[in-house]
Amino acid sequence: MNVIAAKEANIKKAESLINEAAMAGSEIVVLPEMWNCPYSNDFFGQYSEVEGEATYEFLSKMAKSLNIYLVGGSIPEIDNGKVYNTSYSFDRNGKLIGKHRKIHLFDIDIEAGIRFMESETLTAGNQSTVINTEFGRIGIGICFDIRFPELFRKMTLAGAKLIILPGAFNMTTGPAHWELTIRARALDNQVYFAACSPARSMEGPYVAFGNSCISNPWGELCGKTDANESNVYADIDFEYVDKIRNQLPLLKARKPDVY
Amino acid sequence: MNVIAAKEANIKKAESLINEAAMAGSEIVVLPEMWNCPYSNDFFGQYSEVEGEATYEFLSKMAKSLNIYLVGGSIPEIDNGKVYNTSYSFDRNGKLIGKHRKIHLFDIDIEAGIRFMESETLTAGNQSTVINTEFGRIGIGICFDIRFPELFRKMTLAGAKLIILPGAFNMTTGPAHWELTIRARALDNQVYFAACSPARSMEGPYVAFGNSCISNPWGELCGKTDANESNVYADIDFEYVDKIRNQLPLLKARKPDVY
Repeated sequence: MNVIAAKEANIKKAESLINEAAMAGSEIVVLPEMWNCPYSNDFFGQYSEVEGEATYEFLSKMAKSLNIYLVGGSIPEIDNGKVYNTSYSFDRNGKLIGKHRKIHLFDIDIEAGIRFMESETLTAGNQSTVINTEFGRIGIGICFDIRFPELFRKMTLAGAKLIILPGAFNMTTGPAHWELTIRARALDNQVYFAACSPARSMEGPYVAFGNSCISNPWGELCGKTDANESNVYADIDFEYVDKIRNQLPLLKARKPDVY
Repeated sequence: MNVIAAKEANIKKAESLINEAAMAGSEIVVLPEMWNCPYSNDFFGQYSEVEGEATYEFLSKMAKSLNIYLVGGSIPEIDNGKVYNTSYSFDRNGKLIGKHRKIHLFDIDIEAGIRFMESETLTAGNQSTVINTEFGRIGIGICFDIRFPELFRKMTLAGAKLIILPGAFNMTTGPAHWELTIRARALDNQVYFAACSPARSMEGPYVAFGNSCISNPWGELCGKTDANESNVYADIDFEYVDKIRNQLPLLKARKPDVY
């Protein structure tokens, strides 16, 4: 989705896109990173909400009214004066079943490319997040978390067969690393990996790469869009995960005593 | 290189290609996996050598006479009645500076694809291998080892800035996973990653994918060939590794207490 400065308009837009996805038959719906707030250190504090406030309430109601699982992208959360980049997940009854605070803050300074220091305003989470659903277990990460293979291995060993990652890569690292890293995490862990970005807009303070996509456990994209606003759909076959893991038994072949 | 059934001819071919590489200015030369022996459980035992025998001796002499570092691909090694898939590395004086025994044996059974069970004849190694050179530290893995991100993270944390992997992927996993995994390991660990395969031959018991290539620490290929026999060259810039690690400080941003 396109994210703009007006929080209320972002919520309206999310409502419309979630409705569209549910009407198309989606049972698990995912929003992008920081979808109710411009992606900028200037806004995270101002847009932040305590858990349970308006945006949270909206997400819970949408999940319940549409009878879907809703992974609510991420929004700025404030707790005891600290601001986090937080993803809330809800079940079909609108009940919170997972909360992930971005563990790895986005601090980067590329020569002739992007500079961004999330740690100037945000506090990092310190826990890996795996949620339970009727389909199986799902790992949740946020954007820069994707850079760290250890985290996704941990989720996988905790039973995740699908990993969902709201993320807003940029115009330096997006073209170079977004699809490569998504496919590699899926392949190495033999999971589906769904990464959901805001659409690209040249008007905001941060130009997201877009290109939301889903990789299957063989490392092939099975759903993909471009930089423009649109829903992306994929069939997630948890039995195919088991099949791949039987044919190419990577997880059983690990040698944890060596590393 | 093309690997054929005759061991002596394979050694002659290796001699010619190593000479060519050294004449072109290479200071580190790499051979592919199982380059003196057909890639088949029927031959590993028969072709195996005790450490220090003919093939080892050949490699050591080549390194010394050409004043190069030589990562001798891999050959079947026999030790106490057990056969290993082993890579010997030599310095400019022909002195052994590293020995890696493939840790993860290639046991795979893909529906409508390849079946291969290395563990029917080979014994696995149990140690990560990093060698010291005048340029910096170099990690060594063999083929299926590449599937396990933990191993390459361990090498990286042990100081590797270049990883060398003799490997013979096949016509099922090669097109699907070879380049993706090489680039992802390089990017995640911010290292150069050089993977050296036998050339593709439709005549032997195992059809290698070929496509030897080198990725730089930004996840871009900086050297590449196709399925045919040829040397592949790349400039390895250890200072560029440091530059990438400073601009995108992934290794410092790890959260080992979380995973």
